Amino acid sequence: MAGPWQKYRGTVSYNGLHLSGWQRQKNTPNTVQEYLEEGLGEIFQEQIKVIAAGRTDAGVHALGQVMHFLAPHRLNPERLLLAINSSIPRSIAVISLEEAQEDFHALAQAKEKWYRYRILHRRARCPLRQGQVFFHPRPLNMNRMEEGAQYVRGCHDFTSFCAARSTAETRVRDLQTLDITGRDDEIHLDFKGPGFLYKMVRNITGVLLQVGRGVYPPERVKEIREALDRREAAFTAPAYGLTLMAVRYGDEEEKVFPREVTGCWEGS
Amino acid sequence: MAGPWQKYRGTVSYNGLHLSGWQRQKNTPNTVQEYLEEGLGEIFQEQIKVIAAGRTDAGVHALGQVMHFLAPHRLNPERLLLAINSSIPRSIAVISLEEAQEDFHALAQAKEKWYRYRILHRRARCPLRQGQVFFHPRPLNMNRMEEGAQYVRGCHDFTSFCAARSTAETRVRDLQTLDITGRDDEIHLDFKGPGFLYKMVRNITGVLLQVGRGVYPPERVKEIREALDRREAAFTAPAYGLTLMAVRYGDEEEKVFPREVTGCWEGS
Repeated sequence: MAGPWQKYRGTVSYNGLHLSGWQRQKNTPNTVQEYLEEGLGEIFQEQIKVIAAGRTDAGVHALGQVMHFLAPHRLNPERLLLAINSSIPRSIAVISLEEAQEDFHALAQAKEKWYRYRILHRRARCPLRQGQVFFHPRPLNMNRMEEGAQYVRGCHDFTSFCAARSTAETRVRDLQTLDITGRDDEIHLDFKGPGFLYKMVRNITGVLLQVGRGVYPPERVKEIREALDRREAAFTAPAYGLTLMAVRYGDEEEKVFPREVTGCWEGS
Repeated sequence: MAGPWQKYRGTVSYNGLHLSGWQRQKNTPNTVQEYLEEGLGEIFQEQIKVIAAGRTDAGVHALGQVMHFLAPHRLNPERLLLAINSSIPRSIAVISLEEAQEDFHALAQAKEKWYRYRILHRRARCPLRQGQVFFHPRPLNMNRMEEGAQYVRGCHDFTSFCAARSTAETRVRDLQTLDITGRDDEIHLDFKGPGFLYKMVRNITGVLLQVGRGVYPPERVKEIREALDRREAAFTAPAYGLTLMAVRYGDEEEKVFPREVTGCWEGS
């Protein structure tokens, strides 16, 4: 790549509720990638391609999505961040931006992604969290959900939890972490691993909800996984309950996710 | 009041962003009071008046607003809660409801109200908190704000911080608590006291923002207060940064606000 080009790495938050997901698509406006590329195109007066760590689905939120792009000339990252944020809708924000090494790749080098599914578990919905949590007023047994979760932790063929239209070469994935925790009136399902199949997180959440409701026994999770058949799994939990929390890169000694992102979350 | 009537006490949350405040007004649709009264009217087939602890302004949110109303007959509170929530917009929710003593009065008996003003203090906005925090990317000195706050704590004539069109008989109020705390990327101004003048919380917040920015010296807060002139105070901080957190009643030994409400907040 000739002289003045500069690669940038950024962290992006978005409220996915009224967006069509990350990936730019023909005939589908309103994607995060398109807004960012249009914004950068205006700033640099050149067509710019933005690559993300993970292509989140329509409706899914992000606190710490990571992206990179190559710009035709250098701009102060602080000023570039402000310029981008002035040129995209308020449902999207670049929350940090820095110059990156030429070989940095947001998709290829992502080591681990952290998704959180939020369930609002109480009698009444919460208007201030509307569209960011899945409202579940009926009983949910967290012990049973925990029992069911043990059957999907680790390295498995997740065909049964993968959307039928997935074109992935292999359906083996390593679900390194699946934590189920109650926090006040919310139940959080935290999924961490190097990669996930299309709708895998929401399909596992759907099955665990059935277990928590008492519709399925916990062992059913094992049967579904072993069946290697998408038709076995229950409903797909709605997209708006899901947030891409953070992405981890490099060989950090401690497996910690960036503070700025978790901080944003904790404070909200 | 004849036989079958029953008084109910409820806690109400709402996202005020697209609402016209609590109080029902001629020629102004979209108030919380109106939605609740219409919903209850449908359920009981009778006109019902709903009284709140505090009349929040247009744009102001609530987690723990408290209300009471008199119903022409008894209904199971659990079922009544669900019925109300099905008949009002999603920007409003009754989060708890119980039968109340005949003499309970949400407005007259409120002992203390807790308002929180949330400032998002970082370079980039947060799409997932959009419309619930006041975004302030420029520097704010919290020590100076703290210094300024001491001049408005306690019992004072708050004329300088009261909207000109207030018709209050006296402008003396007891601001029992004003805590300024940083929590991750937010600064919270927590106001507690038995009562507040019209726009008083947002006007004090506006002046303290000017102090934090370095526009006013902290002592200016004292001068403004002592001037007893509304024209002295700075701008009114925008409504959407403010939330009525909770209302305290009765003579609880400890001055604690209801857990269900603070819990809702902490988990969000």
